[in-house]
Amino acid sequence: MKNSNSLFKERSRACVDIMDRKKIDLLVLPPGSNMYYLTGFHEEQWERFLVALFPRNRAPLFIVPEIYEDQVKSSTWISDIRIWHESDDPLVILEKVLSDLCLMGGTIAMDTRLWAKFFLMFLRLAPKAHYIESYEIMDEMRMKKSPLEINLLEKASSIADRVMKKAISECKVGAKEKDIALLIECETRRIGGEATSFKPIVGSGPHSALPHYRFGNRKFESGDSIVIDFGALYKGYCSDMTRTVFVEHCTKRKMKVYEVVKKAQQEAFEAVRCGIEARQVDRVARNCIHKKGYGEQFFHRTGHGIGLEVHEKPYIVEGNSRRLENGMAFSIEPGIYFANDFGVRIEDVVTLEECKGRRLNLYPRELIVV
Amino acid sequence: MKNSNSLFKERSRACVDIMDRKKIDLLVLPPGSNMYYLTGFHEEQWERFLVALFPRNRAPLFIVPEIYEDQVKSSTWISDIRIWHESDDPLVILEKVLSDLCLMGGTIAMDTRLWAKFFLMFLRLAPKAHYIESYEIMDEMRMKKSPLEINLLEKASSIADRVMKKAISECKVGAKEKDIALLIECETRRIGGEATSFKPIVGSGPHSALPHYRFGNRKFESGDSIVIDFGALYKGYCSDMTRTVFVEHCTKRKMKVYEVVKKAQQEAFEAVRCGIEARQVDRVARNCIHKKGYGEQFFHRTGHGIGLEVHEKPYIVEGNSRRLENGMAFSIEPGIYFANDFGVRIEDVVTLEECKGRRLNLYPRELIVV
Repeated sequence: MKNSNSLFKERSRACVDIMDRKKIDLLVLPPGSNMYYLTGFHEEQWERFLVALFPRNRAPLFIVPEIYEDQVKSSTWISDIRIWHESDDPLVILEKVLSDLCLMGGTIAMDTRLWAKFFLMFLRLAPKAHYIESYEIMDEMRMKKSPLEINLLEKASSIADRVMKKAISECKVGAKEKDIALLIECETRRIGGEATSFKPIVGSGPHSALPHYRFGNRKFESGDSIVIDFGALYKGYCSDMTRTVFVEHCTKRKMKVYEVVKKAQQEAFEAVRCGIEARQVDRVARNCIHKKGYGEQFFHRTGHGIGLEVHEKPYIVEGNSRRLENGMAFSIEPGIYFANDFGVRIEDVVTLEECKGRRLNLYPRELIVV
Repeated sequence: MKNSNSLFKERSRACVDIMDRKKIDLLVLPPGSNMYYLTGFHEEQWERFLVALFPRNRAPLFIVPEIYEDQVKSSTWISDIRIWHESDDPLVILEKVLSDLCLMGGTIAMDTRLWAKFFLMFLRLAPKAHYIESYEIMDEMRMKKSPLEINLLEKASSIADRVMKKAISECKVGAKEKDIALLIECETRRIGGEATSFKPIVGSGPHSALPHYRFGNRKFESGDSIVIDFGALYKGYCSDMTRTVFVEHCTKRKMKVYEVVKKAQQEAFEAVRCGIEARQVDRVARNCIHKKGYGEQFFHRTGHGIGLEVHEKPYIVEGNSRRLENGMAFSIEPGIYFANDFGVRIEDVVTLEECKGRRLNLYPRELIVV
């Protein structure tokens, strides 16, 4: 996609249209997914000031440290690129740009993840501007994926499926959480992922009860439940999946909990259709778990949107009345957790196509005892 | 270090002392290196509002989403932890906290990397506060490493040294940049690194002339120069090193450039002593390269501090008059780049101990033809 200049241009035009409708005068994007989405240049945020500025009434421009000059020029369709040298003060360049554009006031939309360090530069130069978050411009566009984007999400999910299979086969007594995490990271890279889309979770025994645990030195014991949660990054797009497996044997109680989670996941998946509110999908999973008496043990949202970021809109959560539409992609991942005991979570990425949900993860959800 | 509560408490006390001297009323820290440094809790920044607040005149507190509750409680010495549930609006909790603490005005220091999304919550609740960057509080402390921290940096560097050796041995005609990057990532994890400290750079042939290139599909050709730049993460601390090697043979011209870079690196290293200004060390490397006629081709700073972040203060750069002190750790990494042709960079991490520089990387800097 890196050379699809017309795609990035088209998105930028759509974005300026939204700014025009909402009377937003400037959009400020640091390196990250929004910058990539509109300009084609892909980097992380670092300490050197690098931004793409999209004024409502003028052509967009970049302010770039000299050492990134060649990379920015070779990857973006934007031609106005202002360079600063290591010994320059980028504040001076920014001041000139804002004053040339008459943007010392007005409404300025800041990228959700713009660092405070850079936000403060704007606040200092334009203290009277009205600052808002970029989501008003970007999130509607980003939420609805094109067929090309869905294709990349599917590829990312299929890499994760293959890695999951291999990871599960190694979940034997005596193996360590960190060994499985290492296998996941290396295998993801080996079969074509750019990286894992986040630091993997391999939580065994009591650690499986911590939804955001990562991994540690714990050795698997007979009877453990193991929550494995990770994703692959493919051409900038993320996957995210979770399976819970059991080592050597599984008690009746754990089996029951597993089946409840699986059922809740399936019911929420079946509820996905055009026009349904995000919170209703959450409600379906929650009701299913609540009815079985585990309501208290399911204390996180049912899912999150996914795309260039592993967590983005739409969030499948209580209170979110956003209606789902074709082209959206999100996780469905109910879980049940008993502190200091064990936990179970099952997660697939689902897209909404032709008014129905489609799972991008094809790895089975049946209970596995390794 | 995770359970060294007294260490984290002591740092927090020192930090509040600085706030008191500078009349800063509140320090706002999202998940990241500053939060870890003061609280012991280590996470990345995500979309859910999670902050540690350090008021000048009151005990510090956390605002935490419910799903992180157990992890925060088990890793920090801070006892005042306010929990919000998935369906709550964290803005309401923040408003109550700021109003209880009488912090709707005053001077508020924001963590350098706090996302705009969260900054805007404060700006909305306390539009009249005076916002500054956290560096005025944190950076002086963070810059001077304790012996324990130096030890962790040394471990991180020795992992990188070992991985570099293996990576270089694979730099043969026909190997791809991405293969070497994969080897670096897996080997770093395999021998005890938590991860690489950043996405590795393996730039071959013309790519070696781009200082911030990552890696791609390019196959190594005979005569290529290959710039390999990566680091390992060990117990939260980073390493960062670069070597440039040549495939099968090396022209006289490349050899000459290599020797100039090596000499500049050595001279800058020898210039390191207590009381010297950061810019003087930069100047030494720059003069050495300038004298040989390559001044234009060395267009980045000579180095950056390193610790919990791979880039932090002190920056070894023109214009930085900060004097170096014992306990500081930074890279020295001059380079010479000919666009569309080739580049050379050599980088070690250096600490200042007993008023002299000490290299943490022990891998040789001699010219290598693989």
